[in-house]
Amino acid sequence: MSEQQTLFRTHNAGELRKEHVGQSVVLNGWVQRRRDLGNLIFIDLRDRSGFAQAVFQPSEDEQHQLLMAQGDKLRSEFVIAVEGVVAAREAANTKIPTGEIEVKVTKIEILNAAKTTPFYIQDNIEVDENLRLKYRYLDLRRAEMQKIFLLRSKVTTYMRNFMDQNSFIEVETPILTKSTPEGARDYLVPSRVHPGEFYALPQSPQLFKQLLMVSGFERYYQIARCFRDEDLRADRQPEFTQIDIEQSFLSMEQFQAMMEELMTGVFKATIGVDIPRPFPRITYGEAMARYGSDKPDIRFGLELQDLTEQVRGSGFKVFNLAIENGGQVKCIVAPGCATYSRKQIDELEAFVKRYGAKGMAWIAVQEEGVKSPIAKFFSEEELAAIIERAGAQKGDLLLFAADSKKVVADSLGALRSKLGKELGLIDESEFKFIWVTEFPLLEHDEEANRYVAAHHPFTMPMEEDLHLLETDPANVRAKAYDLALNGFELGGGSMRIFNREIQERMFQALGFSLEEAWEQFGFLLEAFEYGTPPHGGIALGLDRMIMIMAGRQSLRDTIAFPKTTSASDLMTNAPSPVVIEQLDSLHIALGGKATTSIEKQEAEETEAK
Amino acid sequence: MSEQQTLFRTHNAGELRKEHVGQSVVLNGWVQRRRDLGNLIFIDLRDRSGFAQAVFQPSEDEQHQLLMAQGDKLRSEFVIAVEGVVAAREAANTKIPTGEIEVKVTKIEILNAAKTTPFYIQDNIEVDENLRLKYRYLDLRRAEMQKIFLLRSKVTTYMRNFMDQNSFIEVETPILTKSTPEGARDYLVPSRVHPGEFYALPQSPQLFKQLLMVSGFERYYQIARCFRDEDLRADRQPEFTQIDIEQSFLSMEQFQAMMEELMTGVFKATIGVDIPRPFPRITYGEAMARYGSDKPDIRFGLELQDLTEQVRGSGFKVFNLAIENGGQVKCIVAPGCATYSRKQIDELEAFVKRYGAKGMAWIAVQEEGVKSPIAKFFSEEELAAIIERAGAQKGDLLLFAADSKKVVADSLGALRSKLGKELGLIDESEFKFIWVTEFPLLEHDEEANRYVAAHHPFTMPMEEDLHLLETDPANVRAKAYDLALNGFELGGGSMRIFNREIQERMFQALGFSLEEAWEQFGFLLEAFEYGTPPHGGIALGLDRMIMIMAGRQSLRDTIAFPKTTSASDLMTNAPSPVVIEQLDSLHIALGGKATTSIEKQEAEETEAK
Repeated sequence: MSEQQTLFRTHNAGELRKEHVGQSVVLNGWVQRRRDLGNLIFIDLRDRSGFAQAVFQPSEDEQHQLLMAQGDKLRSEFVIAVEGVVAAREAANTKIPTGEIEVKVTKIEILNAAKTTPFYIQDNIEVDENLRLKYRYLDLRRAEMQKIFLLRSKVTTYMRNFMDQNSFIEVETPILTKSTPEGARDYLVPSRVHPGEFYALPQSPQLFKQLLMVSGFERYYQIARCFRDEDLRADRQPEFTQIDIEQSFLSMEQFQAMMEELMTGVFKATIGVDIPRPFPRITYGEAMARYGSDKPDIRFGLELQDLTEQVRGSGFKVFNLAIENGGQVKCIVAPGCATYSRKQIDELEAFVKRYGAKGMAWIAVQEEGVKSPIAKFFSEEELAAIIERAGAQKGDLLLFAADSKKVVADSLGALRSKLGKELGLIDESEFKFIWVTEFPLLEHDEEANRYVAAHHPFTMPMEEDLHLLETDPANVRAKAYDLALNGFELGGGSMRIFNREIQERMFQALGFSLEEAWEQFGFLLEAFEYGTPPHGGIALGLDRMIMIMAGRQSLRDTIAFPKTTSASDLMTNAPSPVVIEQLDSLHIALGGKATTSIEKQEAEETEAK
Repeated sequence: MSEQQTLFRTHNAGELRKEHVGQSVVLNGWVQRRRDLGNLIFIDLRDRSGFAQAVFQPSEDEQHQLLMAQGDKLRSEFVIAVEGVVAAREAANTKIPTGEIEVKVTKIEILNAAKTTPFYIQDNIEVDENLRLKYRYLDLRRAEMQKIFLLRSKVTTYMRNFMDQNSFIEVETPILTKSTPEGARDYLVPSRVHPGEFYALPQSPQLFKQLLMVSGFERYYQIARCFRDEDLRADRQPEFTQIDIEQSFLSMEQFQAMMEELMTGVFKATIGVDIPRPFPRITYGEAMARYGSDKPDIRFGLELQDLTEQVRGSGFKVFNLAIENGGQVKCIVAPGCATYSRKQIDELEAFVKRYGAKGMAWIAVQEEGVKSPIAKFFSEEELAAIIERAGAQKGDLLLFAADSKKVVADSLGALRSKLGKELGLIDESEFKFIWVTEFPLLEHDEEANRYVAAHHPFTMPMEEDLHLLETDPANVRAKAYDLALNGFELGGGSMRIFNREIQERMFQALGFSLEEAWEQFGFLLEAFEYGTPPHGGIALGLDRMIMIMAGRQSLRDTIAFPKTTSASDLMTNAPSPVVIEQLDSLHIALGGKATTSIEKQEAEETEAK
């Protein structure tokens, strides 16, 4: 069925307009659809630019009858080349860009046939995602998907040029690198040449980019593939892409300003959105207190209200107990929700319980007065004071959390996001960036009973807290800055340690002995002694950024060939068994816990849902 | 020793000129060297842009004495920030760009100290490469290395913009993908979620880019990391970067013209070299016949001369035997080498023997007449005819190969390159591209006793040879085109099979059963049935291209963190042993041929404890 192509495109189908009328053109592309009106055949011919209508008209001419016979064979998704003359349509279709013209076909080549596709090549299809992933090459043929990858390419092109104009050099760092004990689980690659040894795929180019600063490159960037063998949630992929940036000799403020210029520039250039600068800044402490989140969505209010002082010593045991245990009592004021049914409130309570809350007290400020199961524990004055302090109006519903600081933040933070969406408080066309600063340097890992790095072990402590590193590590703040956008963490950055002694102290704070630190990171510690400049940087999640810009819900829509939640590629069937000779040459054998994998089952069950 | 930076750069050191005299500037960078003239201290302060001289001058001022004390502490590679005033030098140094000025220091911050580096941070050092690789971050600090990576970044930036302007979309394809049996050895990544299964790192994005064509992206590019677990030669790296390009609906000629525009554009924009277009084209057959190479260096002549017909039936048995066995007799005419000593000729003979030649006959056309150990087998007329046919002049040396076509090409091709260099026939400032076309589609693999793909199994046969695929596979030519530059293969491209039946026939020609083909490449064969456009592309080796452009001899100089010939990273010590829990979670165990070296490791670990 396939012919040798001799008709090569002169125009993009989607760009034909009235001014082309009378011109002879060649279009190459796919049959979007074919309508046969007996003596006339209409084709929507689609290419990357859009589509145009092509017409096969009958004629006495023998040549033309052959043409009609060809047109008769066409089906959806056939690949064709047509030559023809652009003509004005009798009845213009103003709904489509090419609706004023059609191409009267004089010649056709059928370059390839097509079977009926497993789903329609059109937008807004309701198809099982697994089927879309198996036939990813067809899924990507749909205009809404093409648009995402065009956007992605435009975004990276813009960003690269911005970096280039600001004297950043693109340097590629290795994918086959060394396994390090900190951070997430590594993907490993057995070495054939060195029996029993392994490379690791990088979780980020962190060490290499810092070494490039030691090398005096001063300004580095890379759009870098990174790998984490994590249990996959809906918004994680085993491989992902980050815009990785590192610079020397700039202050934190200078660098942040440059990143704001980058971000506002790319949003303006690619999706035409104006974003004011400078971006607001908030400390981690304030973000957790006001939004219950270290990546607050500031497109709406609904802030957490602290009522700890108002309710201290009240008659309500649950509140008192929380406060006595060093916790807090906070609430969210849901506007206009005072008439929520018991069932609606129960659902909200079930929701916050997922985040560790043991229950959820509430007060409805109804027209006819306060309604609340906890009203009886408070005097009228106390109730009025609570309502006033919370800033609630008639018609509002106060939803409480009383627990440890963490549980209060987690549960009310999640509740805030949920209500923000459900109550329509969010303008989905808005993009609101915010810098979150002064993160804690360390977090206590209860399981391992030691401190772990909140960002990574190379983050510089704030100078004024440095003296606490050994004595009060939990209260050391980091020179770290996350960039949040619409409630997502878009990137994490920091100024780095560039001094051997501080880096050694940091490793020790993480429970390493000096010997262990040198065994694992000796090349970095040594490098710091040969003239290392002050430096810092950021890593921005490209996949997530595109997801937000394109208004999608899943990272899988922003990666051309993504993996499922069980890290499978449904199109190629990767991963897959390999022949034993391959394992032999890598000096490994199947073994360990290989018989059944609970995680795999769980992942498959999740996917099936 | 390290101070908090408060002096931030206002100028690049290497860009200060006379017109800055009188200006107050801040420089940030490294101490390149320090000269102490007792009452004056001179510093060469280096940053990425170059360096400038900074002067510490004595004064009665107490502040100034503190400054001198600071200047006194400085050593090579200290990181500093200085504030000062640009002054004209009394005696300008015209050899350096900043030689007319110096900066009189008024303030200094010592941002970091430095130990004495294991080698000098300067160009043209004579240092063991392993030491350079261990301290790669210092090696990269040298100006000649920085220049290479600046060039590399400029080249990719130019190419990306070219591709963007020509409507190519950058799409990222997976690194964790499926192992396929064709091609080089794969790097494997064990799956934690799927016991006993493995991902493979891609040898190229070939299948994905073809599927993007099925998806209708029409024009794709990616600067893509690729992986081959090969035995490493001097010019190979386990991971390398290719400029990967694929397009639909363009003819081979249109596409080649576009690539020529790309290449000439990037050479002009980055190293200022004008290269004429169109590039010459040569068939594989002609290239092998004339240059003994499928990537001929056409910067010089010294072509292979075919003397098979001249010597057929002569008295020299060695020639006759080669011809009777279906072979050839060819020679190279080394200009002005007639007076080579026996020792010199013996060395050349030893050289060609490495390429399979059993010996090397020669004829020296000396002033006093012909000198040759084989002269006695020929009449004077025969000798004169040989010399004339070879185009030799008085003073030339004819060097012969008589063997199979392959051995003749290999040995004389290598000899040609060697002599071209040694006789100074090559203008090293020239860049000569050439397209090599009409490659054989298949090569017979003696070891496996089957045909293998000369390029890869997705290469389109020339339409006129397609009927020979089953009956005479060795004589099927491919629609493949390699781009050679100065004797290197810069890239390989082809038009692709886009039809299921031809792809199936190709797999069968490679010895696959239909079942095996579908098992391995079912997703591609199936994709071909849903409307696949005619397409083709190329993959250009970026590392090698930079090596040639920068005039370097080793790929390791073009990769920021390269690996040794045993695939080790001497800086990070990758690959390295991992803890047993990591292997357990991947369902693998050390085994196979690994026992001895594991025992060795264990012994070492025990010792360390």
